[in-house]
This record gives sequence, C-alpha cells and structure tokens, in this order.
Amino acid sequence: MPAPFVHRLRVRYGECDAQGIVFNANWFLYFDVALTELWREAFGSYGAMVQSGSDVVVVDASAQFKGSARFDEELEIAMGIERLGTTSMVSRLAATRDGERLVEARMVHVFVEPATMAKQEIPDFARERLAPYVTGA
Amino acid sequence: MPAPFVHRLRVRYGECDAQGIVFNANWFLYFDVALTELWREAFGSYGAMVQSGSDVVVVDASAQFKGSARFDEELEIAMGIERLGTTSMVSRLAATRDGERLVEARMVHVFVEPATMAKQEIPDFARERLAPYVTGA
Amino acid sequence: MPAPFVHRLRVRYGECDAQGIVFNANWFLYFDVALTELWREAFGSYGAMVQSGSDVVVVDASAQFKGSARFDEELEIAMGIERLGTTSMVSRLAATRDGERLVEARMVHVFVEPATMAKQEIPDFARERLAPYVTGA
Amino acid sequence: MPAPFVHRLRVRYGECDAQGIVFNANWFLYFDVALTELWREAFGSYGAMVQSGSDVVVVDASAQFKGSARFDEELEIAMGIERLGTTSMVSRLAATRDGERLVEARMVHVFVEPATMAKQEIPDFARERLAPYVTGA
Repeated sequence: MPAPFVHRLRVRYGECDAQGIVFNANWFLYFDVALTELWREAFGSYGAMVQSGSDVVVVDASAQFKGSARFDEELEIAMGIERLGTTSMVSRLAATRDGERLVEARMVHVFVEPATMAKQEIPDFARERLAPYVTGA
Repeated sequence: MPAPFVHRLRVRYGECDAQGIVFNANWFLYFDVALTELWREAFGSYGAMVQSGSDVVVVDASAQFKGSARFDEELEIAMGIERLGTTSMVSRLAATRDGERLVEARMVHVFVEPATMAKQEIPDFARERLAPYVTGA
Repeated sequence: MPAPFVHRLRVRYGECDAQGIVFNANWFLYFDVALTELWREAFGSYGAMVQSGSDVVVVDASAQFKGSARFDEELEIAMGIERLGTTSMVSRLAATRDGERLVEARMVHVFVEPATMAKQEIPDFARERLAPYVTGA
Repeated sequence: MPAPFVHRLRVRYGECDAQGIVFNANWFLYFDVALTELWREAFGSYGAMVQSGSDVVVVDASAQFKGSARFDEELEIAMGIERLGTTSMVSRLAATRDGERLVEARMVHVFVEPATMAKQEIPDFARERLAPYVTGA
C-alpha cells in the first residue's frame, strides 16, 4: 500500500557519525522534518495549525534500524497516520533509499492547546485536514 | 531497584527547540552519551572495547516522553542491561530531573565484528565486563 | 553583483534554540550544506570530487550575525569564491530571507590529498570546474 | 598567560562527522557551552544573569582550525574576555587537547534587554561580575 505522504531529503555531512553513517538520533530529526512537511500540506504550515488552535507534543517514539544511510544519499521518508484517536495521533514512518527500507518508525503525538499545552480533543477541523493521511493499522 | 549505572549531564542551549525544551531527537543523543560512559566504566573506553574485538550497532530504539527538560537543567540518565542475549543487548534507560522521571527508553544493540560489521556472539570477555550492569527484566 | 551559486533551505525545528531562533552554530551547518550543493553542481558530487583526487578541510570560518531566522522560514544561502589560491579557496556566503540579509560569512578551505590529508596544490581539473564560481574580492 | 576560565568537555559520538573528526559547526556549539559555564561561575547561571536584567546575542563568531579532535577525546576550552565595551563583549577562546592547540576563536556578544532584545549598556553589576575574566587584548 503506498504511503499517503512522502518527503525526500538528503543526508548532510554533519548528520553522519564517526562510522560514516547517519547517527541514530538524527533519524528522529528526519521524522520530525517529514511531519513538518505533512503539516504544511494539510494545514498550510505548522504555524497555521497552531494559529487554528492546535499544537502537538511527542509522547512516544520508536524506530527499528534495518540498514544505514551515508552522506549525500537521498532518502524517502514515507508517512501515514495509523490512527487518529480522541486526543492522540499514531503515525507510521519508513525511510527508504532507492526502495530499500532502512528504518521503520512509529510516533505518537498528543494534541494540546497552544497556550496552556493542556491535552485537547482533536478538533473536527484538524481531523478533516488529516483524514487523507489516515491509512489504518 | 537502583540502576547499576548513572550518568549526569546538563542540557545545552542548542539542544533545546523553539518550545524551549529538549528536542525529542536529542534524548537519543543523551542515551548514546550515557552508553559511552558505561563502556568507559566497563571496558576503559568505547575504543578499548573495539580494540578487544567487539563493536555494537543500534537496531531498535524507543522512548516514552512523560515530561520535558529545559536549558541548563541537570539530568540523571540511569541505565541497566535488561538482557544479554546471544548477540544482542537490551538496555533500559530513564532520564530524571531531581527524581522526576521525564523519559523512559529501551535500546537494543547487536554486537558486531569491528572489521566486517558482521553480527558476532557476545564474547565471554565482554559478557563478564557487562555482568555488573545486568538487572534482568 | 549576483552570487554565482544559491542554495535554498528551510529552518528545521531542532535547529532553533530556546530563543526560538536558529542557534548560532547551526548557521555553519547551513554553510556546509550550501558548499555540498556547490560541489554537486561543479563536480557531480562531493564524492566525485574526492574520487577525482581532491578533498578539502576547513581552516577558517567566520560569520557576522545581523538578523535571525525562525522555524520553517525559507532561507537563501548565496555563495561565491573570492579567491582560488595555490592550495586554498576563500568563499563568501550570505544568508537572506526574502532579500533581507541575516548572516554574512567567510570560509577558507585547504585542498588535501584524500588518502593522506596532506595539503595539495589545487589541480587544474578542480580549478576549471570552480572557475564559474569565482567572483573576486 | 593562563586563561581566566577553562571548561573541560568530552567529544560525543554524534558530534563527529564522516571524517571521524568534530564537525566544524560543532566547535561553535562547544564555545557556547563554555560561555554558559562562565555565566554560571560569574552570575550563578545564565538564567540568573537574565533575571538580573541582561541577556546577550552573538553578533560575530570566527574560528581558526589548526587541528582536529576525535570521538571520546577530552578537550579544554579556555576563555577570556578581551574587551568589555559599552554594549559589547569580545571573547577569545582556545580549544586544546593535552596542551595541543586545536582551534582558536573570537566571539562578540552584545548585551540586550531580555524583554525587548534592544541593545543595552552593560550594567555595572554585570561589569563587576565579569571583571575577573577580562584579560585585555
């Protein structure tokens, strides 16, 4: 099943470690970048989403590393929403290079009021904008 | 049960994000630093472990974020080895600030031959050095 | 005078600091990314340049900060080579947002043999490929 | 002449690049860490300085790279204030490993009102606290 959202990026020199491969923590940086681009497509921008009354915080992040990537390689970060719960969003991500799957990840975000950072039910507005990216489990 | 290994570090300015809190990917950076210090205590240094014939690669990393940390705060990263398998090591980590648990994590490393990066059975030498840190599940 | 090379990039969340602006060290990361893209245009890629017998190391880097950039803003990094000496390359860079100049920088790289990292005279091949980017002082 | 302030730190794995050495931008990260520790010694903490009515922004940063550092090496960042002007502070930094000088740097910070980020004259309070670190040119 093709992912509903894909972002391409290139490995930067400073993101590799002394083994010459992307440092494990930096994959989570890439996933954050992909999510930012999904916000852009769904809401106009992350800032527009916050303006509309919703922010998100990460509560769970996990990744399985099956391969590695090197400097200057172009990666494809595919992303889909597995589940939009009452207050939380579960995402599935996969990083590939030329079709080879390197990293799989799962992230859980909770929606919060921007001013107070208190948990909020996902507003209908956000739910509609995110619907095209929901793939199910 | 107290963790067999604890490393203290301080949040740097550039590790925080625009929300003023430690950027989620950087927690994995902290866990890597704690592991480096465990290698130092167990083997003399990471380099000494590699010299002795073993390197490791991360195959799985996950974290649950329960709280956040801000610039200049001092954190305690507690770490124990849940299981030393045939070729893999499962670690449990917890980051706290003044006793408040902020992040819990689990990492799986696989032992590899330094020259070929091929999977290796954990050598007896390494197993002995790591024994004091094994806590069980 | 227009710069002979321009690379556009977008500020990532984790690159901002607790003041909400790009952390000063990360501007040097951006300049490195711009240089990588110049290598791509001139040589095919950084890897191709190394294959052809030349690598570079940074010996001097300086920047003047006149403004700041925030998360998700799109920046233009303009770059030109001020001087190609016997063994060194002096570059001038400017980061702008919508025409507003935020940071100006100067970097000096020395050409080295990839195998030994010993200083080398810039080969004619590299000199020709870089000629279109030389702007003079 | 010995530097009036020295901070020791250890190179982290993720701070090295694919050449196995500290990525050039990360030296500026180290200098920021050293400055944070100087604020701690002089004011109690960076936060205490801001509370007392002064914040700083970087307006100029430059570094000369004479050597490189590798993963797990312990570095000494020595720092002194060359000049406390009306509104600006010029610092000199040197990073060494076992006495070998690897990087020299100069940074210029401007004092600002925390609320408005408008330039301020360095208050007498801050001037007194920083006096022990002033070395002259």
